[in-house]
Amino acid sequence: MAYIDLGVDEKQFPGIIGPMRYRPETAKPLNELAEVLLRAPNSLPAGERELIAAYVSERNDCDFCAASHSAFAAAQLDAGAALVEQVRADLDTAPISAKLRALLRIAGAVQVSGRNVTTELVDAARAEGATDVEIHDTVLIAAAFCMFNRYVDGLGTFAPEGPDVYTETARQILAVGYQSAAVEVRPVSGPPATS
Amino acid sequence: MAYIDLGVDEKQFPGIIGPMRYRPETAKPLNELAEVLLRAPNSLPAGERELIAAYVSERNDCDFCAASHSAFAAAQLDAGAALVEQVRADLDTAPISAKLRALLRIAGAVQVSGRNVTTELVDAARAEGATDVEIHDTVLIAAAFCMFNRYVDGLGTFAPEGPDVYTETARQILAVGYQSAAVEVRPVSGPPATS
Repeated sequence: MAYIDLGVDEKQFPGIIGPMRYRPETAKPLNELAEVLLRAPNSLPAGERELIAAYVSERNDCDFCAASHSAFAAAQLDAGAALVEQVRADLDTAPISAKLRALLRIAGAVQVSGRNVTTELVDAARAEGATDVEIHDTVLIAAAFCMFNRYVDGLGTFAPEGPDVYTETARQILAVGYQSAAVEVRPVSGPPATS
Repeated sequence: MAYIDLGVDEKQFPGIIGPMRYRPETAKPLNELAEVLLRAPNSLPAGERELIAAYVSERNDCDFCAASHSAFAAAQLDAGAALVEQVRADLDTAPISAKLRALLRIAGAVQVSGRNVTTELVDAARAEGATDVEIHDTVLIAAAFCMFNRYVDGLGTFAPEGPDVYTETARQILAVGYQSAAVEVRPVSGPPATS
């Protein structure tokens, strides 16, 4: 459980949701940033932006964010969860566009250090058709998840196991967006409580 | 100069200022986050919060952010720039409170990975009087600068040398805050332009 008392039942409010309810003053800009980067209109499809988030979170070893954003990506990509798994397993062979592969390579560099991004990585993305805004947003999505991942794990929050919770959270995020996302994790099956 | 065309003269708008002018949609929540974390009323003095930002930026090897936030810290700490240098050079011996030293150790762990924060580091901060909100905010400031640093360097932005520009920017930030911070870097000396 978390290192500080978040004032919530972490099984109901796992991962980043607890700290966001604990400190709404910081949750507001964090959710607004996620909304702009991952859901606002963009020439990069939302599923591809979520894939960048999942890829960086996997490399930062953040179980909650990797599972969440893999579910959000899978829900918005035609090829679904199988493609997300292929990208997380081996970027070089995953069946994605050359442009997305080049952008994910930039994201992978950012995950290590901003200084690992090179002219060659940026030129390679541009040669595959990436625009300046897409390159900008890829760098900032990758950088932002280096923050979100550290926020979630640096406070020692709880990450549920298994895909069900994340699939349900994906459904809620797709329905209401990140700015309404300090959501309660509701049971995905079973009878209603009878208390 | 930056990897993408930011549409500004980077000598006038160095570091993060160029990308913020390029993409105001993301600049808005980024500046709001900085304002809440670094300047809003808090039991941690603003100078100490800026010192956490400078310390993390130094460890991420981000010249622009380390110089900026060192200047912002120095402008708000009684002991000024000398103390900032002592902390950046050797946290163990710098003449700061035991509480601030324990919080900076948490920040140093977050800089590497959220998973590097331990119960022992958190308990040590609490034993020196750190509150849960202070521990939360330390983790999020450190995490946020792992984002800001990667954003600045991942786009290859320009970092001016020497302290003058950063001292002048500190004056402006203290005067107007981060939410008005997409400021132009004005010359700090010399006659006005005569054109």
